[in-house]
Amino acid sequence: MAQLPQGVDATAFRDATEKLRKIVGAEWVVADASLKSYWDHHSPVAEDSRAPSAAVCPDGVEQVQRILAVANEYRLPLWTIGTGKNFAYGGPSPLRAGYVVLDLKRMNRILEGNEDSAYALVEPGVSYFQLYEHLREKKSRLWIDCAAVGWGGVIGNALEHGAGYTPYADHFIMQCGMEVVLADGTVVLTGMGAMPKSTAWQLFKYGYGPHLDGMFTQSNFAVVTKMGIWLMPEPPAYKPFMITLPRDEDLAAAIEILRPLKLAMIIPNGVVVANALYEIAVHQTKAEVHPGAMRGPVPDDVVRKVAKERELGAWNAYGALYGIPIGVEKYWEIVKGSFSRIPGVKFYSKGDRAGDPGWEYREKLMRGVPNMTEFGIVNWQGGGHVNFTPVAPMTGDDAVKMQRMMRDIMHRHGFDYIAEFVATWRAMVNVLMLMFEQKDADARKRAHDCAKAIITEAAKAGYGELKANLEFMDLVASTYGACDNGYWKVCQRLKDELDPGGILSPGKSGIWPKKTV
Amino acid sequence: MAQLPQGVDATAFRDATEKLRKIVGAEWVVADASLKSYWDHHSPVAEDSRAPSAAVCPDGVEQVQRILAVANEYRLPLWTIGTGKNFAYGGPSPLRAGYVVLDLKRMNRILEGNEDSAYALVEPGVSYFQLYEHLREKKSRLWIDCAAVGWGGVIGNALEHGAGYTPYADHFIMQCGMEVVLADGTVVLTGMGAMPKSTAWQLFKYGYGPHLDGMFTQSNFAVVTKMGIWLMPEPPAYKPFMITLPRDEDLAAAIEILRPLKLAMIIPNGVVVANALYEIAVHQTKAEVHPGAMRGPVPDDVVRKVAKERELGAWNAYGALYGIPIGVEKYWEIVKGSFSRIPGVKFYSKGDRAGDPGWEYREKLMRGVPNMTEFGIVNWQGGGHVNFTPVAPMTGDDAVKMQRMMRDIMHRHGFDYIAEFVATWRAMVNVLMLMFEQKDADARKRAHDCAKAIITEAAKAGYGELKANLEFMDLVASTYGACDNGYWKVCQRLKDELDPGGILSPGKSGIWPKKTV
Repeated sequence: MAQLPQGVDATAFRDATEKLRKIVGAEWVVADASLKSYWDHHSPVAEDSRAPSAAVCPDGVEQVQRILAVANEYRLPLWTIGTGKNFAYGGPSPLRAGYVVLDLKRMNRILEGNEDSAYALVEPGVSYFQLYEHLREKKSRLWIDCAAVGWGGVIGNALEHGAGYTPYADHFIMQCGMEVVLADGTVVLTGMGAMPKSTAWQLFKYGYGPHLDGMFTQSNFAVVTKMGIWLMPEPPAYKPFMITLPRDEDLAAAIEILRPLKLAMIIPNGVVVANALYEIAVHQTKAEVHPGAMRGPVPDDVVRKVAKERELGAWNAYGALYGIPIGVEKYWEIVKGSFSRIPGVKFYSKGDRAGDPGWEYREKLMRGVPNMTEFGIVNWQGGGHVNFTPVAPMTGDDAVKMQRMMRDIMHRHGFDYIAEFVATWRAMVNVLMLMFEQKDADARKRAHDCAKAIITEAAKAGYGELKANLEFMDLVASTYGACDNGYWKVCQRLKDELDPGGILSPGKSGIWPKKTV
Repeated sequence: MAQLPQGVDATAFRDATEKLRKIVGAEWVVADASLKSYWDHHSPVAEDSRAPSAAVCPDGVEQVQRILAVANEYRLPLWTIGTGKNFAYGGPSPLRAGYVVLDLKRMNRILEGNEDSAYALVEPGVSYFQLYEHLREKKSRLWIDCAAVGWGGVIGNALEHGAGYTPYADHFIMQCGMEVVLADGTVVLTGMGAMPKSTAWQLFKYGYGPHLDGMFTQSNFAVVTKMGIWLMPEPPAYKPFMITLPRDEDLAAAIEILRPLKLAMIIPNGVVVANALYEIAVHQTKAEVHPGAMRGPVPDDVVRKVAKERELGAWNAYGALYGIPIGVEKYWEIVKGSFSRIPGVKFYSKGDRAGDPGWEYREKLMRGVPNMTEFGIVNWQGGGHVNFTPVAPMTGDDAVKMQRMMRDIMHRHGFDYIAEFVATWRAMVNVLMLMFEQKDADARKRAHDCAKAIITEAAKAGYGELKANLEFMDLVASTYGACDNGYWKVCQRLKDELDPGGILSPGKSGIWPKKTV
């Protein structure tokens, strides 16, 4: 039998799950071997370290309310997930073994989609694929903005401050209106949703009084059960591009060139600048690229050789232009003119890289077509996978500093440096992919050490992670301690006030209830 | 002597103000006749109804912390203001007579302004004029986005979910990073500010964990002492325009035409569609336009006559195009082509309305040049002034419905219908200017009744106010009661947890502490 929640004995647990079965139906409480589907198979610790005691799958707000009542009665820690695809950060797995997963996958309705006002109202189980298909079936001209891997959840990603690849890349900015359920069952509609007859809930972000939506992101103060998301009208012209930068040291110049283009919204989407190994690892395995040497990074000359074969630069920038044809063509001249000062730079657009699977999936993402291509990276080396996302000002100096720091740390621990920089409006996020042999205890140990080094070294330089794998939530939280932990003091008070029983995702984002369950 | 705070006797009040003097210096505690500067001279109730007992003006965070300690000790209700120009909503006046105004006007530093990354970090006393002048002195190429009246505060306006007239119109979306002080003196830096060495506090909106900034807007949970604001790089091309719509009934078509242009960001700024009387009232008095008949609305034929003389339409749309010259010219063709289906429509751009003061100030606002022109509206009729801002989906049907409803209510109470519709990305805000004889008790009474009718009738139709005059805060709050007041339940809990003494702006946005001071 699986480990029980801390402080809950077998009898109480049996009674509690019996009550949960009465709420959702026996088939929607999982407490047997199939709980394995909630393990994180990419984890930097053993797969079964975070085995839940049970999972419960409600089919609506009223069932969520009743589950919360049972959880409060028995002090069951509930770990809320939507589509549960949070891979590289813990997947569907709870923070601690024994937690009960509150799995919202059945709540996957697309409630409203108004073509004229360009939004959808979705439940937590709705994936990017599902929303995309829904719009295509309706012959909609609206685009979605999806995460790199299309099975992810529209709500889950926005709640984690995630981003996509069209001009609607900032998913929290593009959300509008939430329905959340507090631990005591209170339903809160934010913004215009609190006005009984408003028809502007998904059209205007504010209501009257404080704007609470952000408080319910990346937190454990409530269960988000609905969210509005803005959709982008298909533009008359769309021009995706790729720019290859021949030398490693071209990164700094590329970031300096990008900054004013991003700021002026000449390039309005999230521009990705990926190193050659990132591009290679998505489509090939380490064994193919460098047979026989799984431990230690692939040597630079091997990377360069494969990159040359595949017409990749040391760094590869992907972006797109959107608007009317004449404007897009003019912008393309500006972009090319700006990057031309880097010797050996090459420009590609539609049709120039037919058959290159790297170009193909990134081009799809930049017009909101969800796909699974990037998930191929988990095959690089034994399935272990932890992601990092330190944030910095968008400057060449910061890019070089991060590149050196992170490459050194990853190489020192025997891993490849697989990295991209994603340009937001004024900052950049350094996405780092730590890949390792998940079944090998030694590799896990090295990955674990490497992860800690990445987080702590980045923080020493002022680069903060914007998300954390379950294993490192407390560590990342500890790096945000300015003003004598002022930020965490307020979070702690909000947690204890809104969830006095401490039942909702205890430990999420480093926020633990006072009385740890 | 002024009315004391409820529950504070004269001795305690004297002791408390003595302590405040020791903190800020005697000259920065106001408790004499000059307190009149904190009255609201535009109020729908008698000017002295909300006379504060004192005002205290700190010069930094440390003084704010010490003031909060004194307020907690003596249970002094503090009413926080920044520049204190919140006219039509209560100005610098506190919600109740006897409150102590916490006036942050001395905290008016512009702390950082990075030309390359296009932001400023400001304190609550910084006005639009000041930030604008600061940038001009530095020969900056960055624009600000200001409210209609330039003496307003950058922080105060953003905290009230205010808007401007450039593409950076949504001031809360354009804010990045806050410093707030909780009632117990805890300092909280939001977002990347919580990471000690981050240089991305004003560059990236999120840190790790919940995004708390919105919680501190339009609330009374803390004192906001710093805020980052994004600044727009001057575009290569800027084309302001005005479109006059000849007939009253053209409003619906205009809104329908606007919606796709706004959604596609062809017109990226907040488009204003103002009725003729709005345009007239900013620049002329009622006595000039319609001598001898102050009571009752100006007759339609008089409005039409003046509008004709001034080349105004029944409705007048102001917007602007931004980008590269060729794109802007193409967009202008699209805009003209779209509006041309309204018979008799006229198009104006730069140079076409020289000497028209209405065009001139609106054109300035659309490139972020602060000015005081629109404040002229307070001279229309006796200085009384209350604003309303019901929000609706951006549809012609809603515009017509709101127009009929509001014109009827305002006329029925004997007032002019002075209105504009401001198009946001997906919604519209119906700005209503209720002007009346402030010194006339009967006019105040009618204005008061009219205000209540506007708020309640709008709410019945699902149109929610996004801001409220002090006099109507509780009333507006009561219209947001969905899900058994779920939204207010959570606000109440946040208030009592974060400010158990109930000292911070009690009653702001309808949020009262449990133990009302």
